[in-house]
Amino acid sequence: MSDPIFERIAIVGAGLIGSSIARAATAYGAAGSVSLYDASDDVRARAEGLDLGNVTATLADAVQDADCVILCVPVGALAPVAKAAVAHMKPGAILTDVGSVKKQAAEALISADNGAVLIIPGHPIAGTEQSGPEAGFPTLFKGAWHILTPQDGKDAVYADAVQKLTDFWTALGAKVETMDPARHDRVLAITSHLPHLIAFNIVSTAFDMETVEEGEVVKFSAGGFRDFTRIAASDPVMWRDVFLNNKEAVLECLGRFSEDLAALQRAIRWGDGDFLMQEFTRARTIRKAVIDAGQDSGAVNFGRNQNGVKDGG
Amino acid sequence: MSDPIFERIAIVGAGLIGSSIARAATAYGAAGSVSLYDASDDVRARAEGLDLGNVTATLADAVQDADCVILCVPVGALAPVAKAAVAHMKPGAILTDVGSVKKQAAEALISADNGAVLIIPGHPIAGTEQSGPEAGFPTLFKGAWHILTPQDGKDAVYADAVQKLTDFWTALGAKVETMDPARHDRVLAITSHLPHLIAFNIVSTAFDMETVEEGEVVKFSAGGFRDFTRIAASDPVMWRDVFLNNKEAVLECLGRFSEDLAALQRAIRWGDGDFLMQEFTRARTIRKAVIDAGQDSGAVNFGRNQNGVKDGG
Repeated sequence: MSDPIFERIAIVGAGLIGSSIARAATAYGAAGSVSLYDASDDVRARAEGLDLGNVTATLADAVQDADCVILCVPVGALAPVAKAAVAHMKPGAILTDVGSVKKQAAEALISADNGAVLIIPGHPIAGTEQSGPEAGFPTLFKGAWHILTPQDGKDAVYADAVQKLTDFWTALGAKVETMDPARHDRVLAITSHLPHLIAFNIVSTAFDMETVEEGEVVKFSAGGFRDFTRIAASDPVMWRDVFLNNKEAVLECLGRFSEDLAALQRAIRWGDGDFLMQEFTRARTIRKAVIDAGQDSGAVNFGRNQNGVKDGG
Repeated sequence: MSDPIFERIAIVGAGLIGSSIARAATAYGAAGSVSLYDASDDVRARAEGLDLGNVTATLADAVQDADCVILCVPVGALAPVAKAAVAHMKPGAILTDVGSVKKQAAEALISADNGAVLIIPGHPIAGTEQSGPEAGFPTLFKGAWHILTPQDGKDAVYADAVQKLTDFWTALGAKVETMDPARHDRVLAITSHLPHLIAFNIVSTAFDMETVEEGEVVKFSAGGFRDFTRIAASDPVMWRDVFLNNKEAVLECLGRFSEDLAALQRAIRWGDGDFLMQEFTRARTIRKAVIDAGQDSGAVNFGRNQNGVKDGG
C-alpha cells in the first residue's frame, strides 16, 4: 500500500459520516493514524468499541498532532467547534468539514481562522438515513461526489493543501469537484434539501391521516410512500441546521415547487389531462438524463427490492 | 405442481403488469393457459416475441374461452374495454382489473355487466417505474398486497369466484385483502398517488432549474433528487388517469400536504428550529412503524445501492 496522504487525521463528530471517514481512511491507507472526538460521552463510549481509531477524551487531544482535522458536526455547531479545534491545531494543518451547506459552513470555519491553519470547506454527497457511529462503513464514499469550496486569492501553500485534501478524498473513492459555496448551496437546495423537506412533509401529512385510515397508510406504504419515509428518517438536527443555514436557496426552490404544484392541482381539479400528460412526460426527460449521466442504475422492483418505488399506482 | 386455479386466463393489455401476470401465472402454474391481447399492433408484436402466452389478433379471440379475464389497461380505458370483453366472454367467467383507482374502475367494469359474468375489481400494489411487455417479470407480485374490492350483496356463486380470484393472486405470491373501493382510493391517495404527484412535480421544478444550473442538478442528483426522478419515470398515461379518476381523494391529500408545507416554509423563513425539529422527529415515528410492519428493510447506502437516498444533505 502506498504512503498515506496524511500522517495523522482527526475527526470531530463520530456519527455516520465521521465514523465512515475513520473506517475508510484506515481501510484505504489514506491516513497513517486516526483520532476521533465526539462531544457526547455516550457516542465516544460507543465509538471506542468500534475500532475506529484513537478515541480521545478531549477535542485538544484529538486535533493537536493532526495534519488534517475534519469536522463532522451539524452545520449549526461548526463555528464554536472550529474555534476550539483551531486553538489546538498545529501550524500548517488543514481544517475541513462535511457540512451540507457551504456558504454558512465556510463562514463558520473562516471565523475561526488564526492565520496558522489552512481552511478548506468540503461536502461529501454521500450518506444513508442512518445515524451514529455504528452506522458508518468504509465504502460510503465510493463513487460519490465530494465537493470542495476552497477560498479565493490564496497562495501556493494553500493550493498544495487543496491538492492533498483532494488526494485524500480520492483515496476514499470519491470524485472530487471544486465549486463556489453559493453555487453549491443553490445546486444542493434543489438536488437534496428540497427533496428531503418534501419527504419530511409528506410523511408528516400522512402521519395525521394514518389515524384516519387506521394503520393502512403504513400497511400499504409500498405504493411509493415507503421511500419517502426512508428519506424522512434522516437525522433531524442535521436537517434542521441545513434548512436554517440555506434558507434563501431552499425558499427559492420551495416557491417554484409550490407554484408548479398549484398548477398540477388545478389541472387535476379541472380535469386537464393534456397538461398532466405534458408534465409527466417531461419528467421522463430528466430521468433519462440521470440514467445517461450514470447517476442511477434504472429499474427497481419494490416487490423484491424493499427500497424500490412502486409504479403500479 | 397442483392443478391450475383457472384453466384459461385472458390478459388484455400487455404492459408491465399484464406481461408480469402472464409470466407469473405460467411460472407458478396458476393458469392452464394464457391468452393476451393488446390494442397496440406494436405491443402485440413485441409480446409475441416474449413467450408470454397465446397473443391473439383480436380481443374476442383472447377472452372467449377464458375462465378469468384480467384487464391491464389504464383506468381511463376500462369502460370501453370491459364492454368489448364482456360481449365475448363465456357465462360465469370472472372479469377483473388491476386499476390503481377502484371506485371509478369498479363503475367502469360494472357498467359493462351483462348479468352473465362475475365482476370483481382488483389492484396489485406492485410495479416498477418501467413500462411495456419487456418490463414484466414473474416475481413482481411476490410479497406484495393485492386488493380486491368485491361488489356487495352478491350470491354464493359470486363469493366462490372471489375465493378463486384470491387463490389465483395468492398463487402468484401476493397477499390478498378485500376493501371498500372508496376506502382503497383514500388509502392509495396518500400512500401512492400523492407521493407520485409530488415526485412528478419536484422533477418538473428541477427541470426548469436544471437550465439555470447547467447540468449540475442531474450531476449531483445523488443528494436525494435521484429517487424522485425514478418515481417520476412512471407511465404518464397511467398516472394521468389515476389523478383524473381519484380527484377528490388526491385533492384532499394535496390540500393537507400544502398546508403542512406552508408551515415548514414559514418555520424556515422565520428560523423556527424548534418547529422543524418537532416535525422531522415526528417523521421518524412513521418510519419506525413502516419498518416494524415489515414494509421496508431499512438502511440504504446510495453510494453502493443506486436506488438509495442520500442523507448527507
